[in-house]
Amino acid sequence: MRRALELAERGPAGGPNPRVGCVLLGPGGEPIAEGWHRGAGTPHAEADALARAPLGAAAGGTAVVTLEPCDHRGRTGPCSVALLDAGVRRVVYAQADPNPLAAGGAERLRAGGVEVVAGLLSDEAAALNERWTAALRLGRPWVTAKWASSLDGRVAAQDGSSRWITGPAARADVHRRRAEHGAIVVGTGTVLADDPALTARDGDALLPAQPRPVVVGLRDVPAEAALHGHPEPVLAVRTRDPHEAVAAIAGTGATSAFLEGGPTLVSAFLAAGLVDEVLVYLAPTLLGGDRLATADLGVRTIAGQRRLAIRDVVRLGDDLLVVARPVEED
Amino acid sequence: MRRALELAERGPAGGPNPRVGCVLLGPGGEPIAEGWHRGAGTPHAEADALARAPLGAAAGGTAVVTLEPCDHRGRTGPCSVALLDAGVRRVVYAQADPNPLAAGGAERLRAGGVEVVAGLLSDEAAALNERWTAALRLGRPWVTAKWASSLDGRVAAQDGSSRWITGPAARADVHRRRAEHGAIVVGTGTVLADDPALTARDGDALLPAQPRPVVVGLRDVPAEAALHGHPEPVLAVRTRDPHEAVAAIAGTGATSAFLEGGPTLVSAFLAAGLVDEVLVYLAPTLLGGDRLATADLGVRTIAGQRRLAIRDVVRLGDDLLVVARPVEED
Ligand SMILES: NC(=O)c1ccc[n+]([C@@H]2O[C@H](COP(=O)([O-])OP(=O)(O)OC[C@H]3O[C@@H](n4cnc5c(N)ncnc54)[C@H](OP(=O)(O)O)[C@@H]3O)[C@@H](O)[C@H]2O)c1
Ligand SMILES: NC(=O)c1ccc[n+]([C@@H]2O[C@H](COP(=O)([O-])OP(=O)(O)OC[C@H]3O[C@@H](n4cnc5c(N)ncnc54)[C@H](OP(=O)(O)O)[C@@H]3O)[C@@H](O)[C@H]2O)c1
Repeated sequence: MRRALELAERGPAGGPNPRVGCVLLGPGGEPIAEGWHRGAGTPHAEADALARAPLGAAAGGTAVVTLEPCDHRGRTGPCSVALLDAGVRRVVYAQADPNPLAAGGAERLRAGGVEVVAGLLSDEAAALNERWTAALRLGRPWVTAKWASSLDGRVAAQDGSSRWITGPAARADVHRRRAEHGAIVVGTGTVLADDPALTARDGDALLPAQPRPVVVGLRDVPAEAALHGHPEPVLAVRTRDPHEAVAAIAGTGATSAFLEGGPTLVSAFLAAGLVDEVLVYLAPTLLGGDRLATADLGVRTIAGQRRLAIRDVVRLGDDLLVVARPVEED
Repeated sequence: MRRALELAERGPAGGPNPRVGCVLLGPGGEPIAEGWHRGAGTPHAEADALARAPLGAAAGGTAVVTLEPCDHRGRTGPCSVALLDAGVRRVVYAQADPNPLAAGGAERLRAGGVEVVAGLLSDEAAALNERWTAALRLGRPWVTAKWASSLDGRVAAQDGSSRWITGPAARADVHRRRAEHGAIVVGTGTVLADDPALTARDGDALLPAQPRPVVVGLRDVPAEAALHGHPEPVLAVRTRDPHEAVAAIAGTGATSAFLEGGPTLVSAFLAAGLVDEVLVYLAPTLLGGDRLATADLGVRTIAGQRRLAIRDVVRLGDDLLVVARPVEED
């Protein structure tokens, strides 16, 4: 299962499908093939592994999969049936399928006489697809909001200059996390002020996974914007309603969105309760003035505060990353 | 010397005098007496230890002291002479005396035929009196500025309510640090808005050391202010000039000040370059709005930012303490 989890990690995060890995073992327990899911429209991990196994070799063997085999005929046939057809005798999986459209694989396998073992390393497997799983629960893409600010909560100096508040280690961390999301979202204000590329890079090199760039706001994205050089097509959502923006992002198939600003858009998402994780990159500097990380969040009294819980604190070079999530109200 | 450092720690921090500990050993190396300095107007550590030693027992022995014995006749005679008079044959000390008025003890002891060993555990000893040492260098009290804010840099909700942004562990840490400073400083705005007691407490109990409460601003401190219940007399400095405020604090003998706000006063001190350490207690919450931790700091462009370096990051319950100091410009 550890190996299957490693294989799963090779798949793309943030898309419509979960990351899944599969190891096939022969009747004697010897590994005969490996597979993983490469994203929507490509074979599922089980099908990928079966296709790589010598003909008939899986008969009487075991399939080790990070997610419950699907029972859903989408662009590929149900994996439950493929495993039955291949004569697999035992299926070990980690996470139960939280997708109501695809679940039921374990049941069909058992009905077909296969021994099914569920829940091995299920926490690790769920962590691998945490945002995808949450998106199913939420019925919308998972939203991670990120900003970089001074210790006193400013995102820019008085004249608007902000390059760079944080150092190279913090910026590299942002790029790595961009690549883990299906979409990267900014307001028209940020596009017009900063002309960002919104690609996920390692130095000058593009990372393999590129989130879909999304711009929210009524104004036009200029034809000459750097954004148009992005490998994925730009989605301009002409609205100021965060709910509409999220629906449009869901429409692209993305199950997670990385919300990079600016303050106006982030505040609108926060006020609408549409943020699932906050990443605050804190630079050890003081700026003062009125270029704030957040605007009005509709909090009138301290009792109405938007309470978070800190999940992680990471030192990145001279800077600090605070990872926090909204506390669920009871 | 470890024992001498422990003894030194019993003394009060933040006052005009450093914390010093002393262990006296007899001619055979056996401990014969211990002493420490209890603050201005009381005997120095060496004198305290000598007074506790059996008559004549120190003759031919060793004095282990955390700070170079003074050569200054203040309220007490010079310790160098007292040690010579007692017939001590060897003096081991940690930190050299940085105070030009008191230094010269080692020289006089050597001239008197005493073997002098300097620098043992000098870093630990200097750390014990870090703010006192820095104050001598700066020619003014050391200033620690503290504020508690949300992750987005707000100190209160829109209606001004702020009790409590941070939790009990953070508040206990504040009280502990108050007790390590000679003065505790707020603006008239905070006195009028919050009516704080400004004592250093452990739960409901007063801590042994109480910083002198100082209020800065032109307005009167109300006669019924809780502040008047403070064990130390309130110093009202009727000015808006942070330099004048610092001079008035120095006049009380304090070598360190704990600047607790509010935003207006802290910003004025920051803008004047009068802050030596910043303590930001960050609560995992978002408030938005315009109740900011800092006001205008005179930073126009990002190149003019007030750069700090993070010294420490501490999780305190649900909260986070960031300790940072200004980066010296070259
Ligand atoms: N430090 C950081 O992490 C960071 C990150 C990003 C940006 N920034 C800085 O932030 C500044 C830009 O800030 P910004 O707040 O103007 O940028 P923004 O949030 O990217 O864009 C604001 C614009 O988005 C549109 N919009 C979308 N939803 C809205 C809503 N619910 N309410 C109001 N407007 C909505 C409006 O434009 P329409 O008129 O087109 O509708 C609005 O003017 C730049 O200086 C940039 O450098 C900093
Ligand atoms: N979260 C925290 O850590 C924290 C800590 C403290 C306070 N607070 C909150 O802060 C709020 C009070 O804020 P504040 O900024 O009004 O309080 P403040 O800084 O304590 O007091 C401001 C007043 O100080 C005087 N002052 C002294 N030096 C000045 C200067 N250089 N420039 C201008 N004024 C100067 C002025 O009053 P005169 O007219 O008398 O000269 C001014 O109105 C309260 O709501 C309190 O709850 C929060």
